[in-house]
Amino acid sequence: MPLTTRVTVLGGGVIGLSVAWRAACAGFAVQVVDHASPHGGSRVAGGMLAPVTEAWPGDEEVLRLGVESLELWPGFARDLGVDLSPVGTLAVAVDRADAEVLDRLCAYLGTLGRSATRLTGRELRALEPGLGQVRSGLSVPGDVAVDNRALLDALRGAAGAAGVRFTTEPGEADVTVIAAGAWSRDLHPALRHVIRPVKGEILRLAARPGALPPPRHTIRAHVSGRPVYLVPRRDGFVLGATQYEAGFDGDVTVGGVRDLLRDAEVVWPGIAEYALVEAAAGFRAGSPDNAPVIGWLEPGVLAATGHHRNGLLLAPVTARRVVDLLREGGTS
Amino acid sequence: MPLTTRVTVLGGGVIGLSVAWRAACAGFAVQVVDHASPHGGSRVAGGMLAPVTEAWPGDEEVLRLGVESLELWPGFARDLGVDLSPVGTLAVAVDRADAEVLDRLCAYLGTLGRSATRLTGRELRALEPGLGQVRSGLSVPGDVAVDNRALLDALRGAAGAAGVRFTTEPGEADVTVIAAGAWSRDLHPALRHVIRPVKGEILRLAARPGALPPPRHTIRAHVSGRPVYLVPRRDGFVLGATQYEAGFDGDVTVGGVRDLLRDAEVVWPGIAEYALVEAAAGFRAGSPDNAPVIGWLEPGVLAATGHHRNGLLLAPVTARRVVDLLREGGTS
Repeated sequence: MPLTTRVTVLGGGVIGLSVAWRAACAGFAVQVVDHASPHGGSRVAGGMLAPVTEAWPGDEEVLRLGVESLELWPGFARDLGVDLSPVGTLAVAVDRADAEVLDRLCAYLGTLGRSATRLTGRELRALEPGLGQVRSGLSVPGDVAVDNRALLDALRGAAGAAGVRFTTEPGEADVTVIAAGAWSRDLHPALRHVIRPVKGEILRLAARPGALPPPRHTIRAHVSGRPVYLVPRRDGFVLGATQYEAGFDGDVTVGGVRDLLRDAEVVWPGIAEYALVEAAAGFRAGSPDNAPVIGWLEPGVLAATGHHRNGLLLAPVTARRVVDLLREGGTS
Repeated sequence: MPLTTRVTVLGGGVIGLSVAWRAACAGFAVQVVDHASPHGGSRVAGGMLAPVTEAWPGDEEVLRLGVESLELWPGFARDLGVDLSPVGTLAVAVDRADAEVLDRLCAYLGTLGRSATRLTGRELRALEPGLGQVRSGLSVPGDVAVDNRALLDALRGAAGAAGVRFTTEPGEADVTVIAAGAWSRDLHPALRHVIRPVKGEILRLAARPGALPPPRHTIRAHVSGRPVYLVPRRDGFVLGATQYEAGFDGDVTVGGVRDLLRDAEVVWPGIAEYALVEAAAGFRAGSPDNAPVIGWLEPGVLAATGHHRNGLLLAPVTARRVVDLLREGGTS
């Protein structure tokens, strides 16, 4: 082995770039192999860093990992020169059943010592006057957001500045890190039946002159049983996300767009006056237990995939773990 | 004046290109000044050649001109190597009020000697099994369609082959033809208060594996008072169109997309399984009486604009009239 370990990272999404950047900073010679799919899960995303709002009894391991990663985020963002949206998340209830779910989530979070506050509809509209007819909600100030595309740009810049080379064909390497999101399943037999693509569609909306300004908080709700979120951006918001188990089908469907617009309009009636700037479909990397796969698959081959809806949130902790594994130099 | 009259056509949409092509074929030295806006009315269009379905008592002049142009279309298309969709139009009624409107339209067309047949809902679904719950309809076999973008490509090719030069800055000319659609109003004082942009949004939908195939006919309806049309393309259809008096606002709005999808789903429920390939906004060139402005504005300056919803339909007759005016060489 040469003095400097050569690491090839397969994948140029948020996980691959974070691993490459941090590994290069730690002294490894890193190249990233990236095919820059327009359907990459971290490109087609809302950018929520929301372990608490995503929490649910039984998923304690994912919550613990998410909280650990969220604690790394301020430093991670500062090193990259990326801003975190400082305003938290409002989970809102449209009907009585939703309100009961929020009651249970709030009680559960209390047992974990996590901060979350129940709000009335009136209190919600005092915070976000553009909300529609919502019954009540849950304020989670710690669940913040990041502009995922600004983040990807910053990661590429920081990785390049740290000496990472970008290529479309892998060269010789001492260690290969498989961080190709949903496509990882085709890169190693051990991932073949573990990782699967979970399709999601998002829309990007921009405020127009005369339109109500976008929400300050991330807004989450369920409408007709479907989850919907609005994540603020500088001039509008990202509206997501559908979820399908449909293989690598990259089409944006009429049904998906219709449902997203219909559901969002219940929560935020002012969207009709917004511009529809983009409609996109991406693939999350699903895993059997919704937890990521981070570890050695065989000597010289590491996996860092299976992050499902939490790739952006879990990028800092994943990069740290992978760099630790590279430093140990073990293989299993 | 040189032996060959130099003609500058301002505008590279269907009117400008048709005029330029036919003028070059007639021996004029032609250049087209084109800024290739993505919002051009003939690029963002369904491609209906439908004078009869568009007819309404009081608009006899527009109908007469449309019928005259439609008779020129087969030869025009043949010269360009462009196919006309040979299947006609079905205007369908969703409710009783619509059905009464179709009764009146059918009677009116009868007085003009135009062919149109009333159909029951059952007869309609025998022709188009994908139709939703429609009460009745009107079959207009003569109202056909053309792929507007294939047409624009063919026109550019034919114009170039006939010697037309394309530029972004006008050179010296003996005659200038203002054929810039809605933008024409800024090109001559006489058009300033005559031509106005009428914004319209369209969607392009593509059939996906397992989806119902697209309709064979052009389908037109009114839903909740809004007009909606589905114009078949090889692998899907164009869904249009909203209509706003909103100046040169090129945004695709959430409200427009929502309404188009909602209305189309009433008429053609299978669209949910289609892919949303494109959403676009364009500007029709509105005129006070919905009839085009074709004629001399001053010595050396001709207008060919104000075609509103009928630019594609009226392209052959407009080109013929402009070439006649150029040949006469008069100025008023």
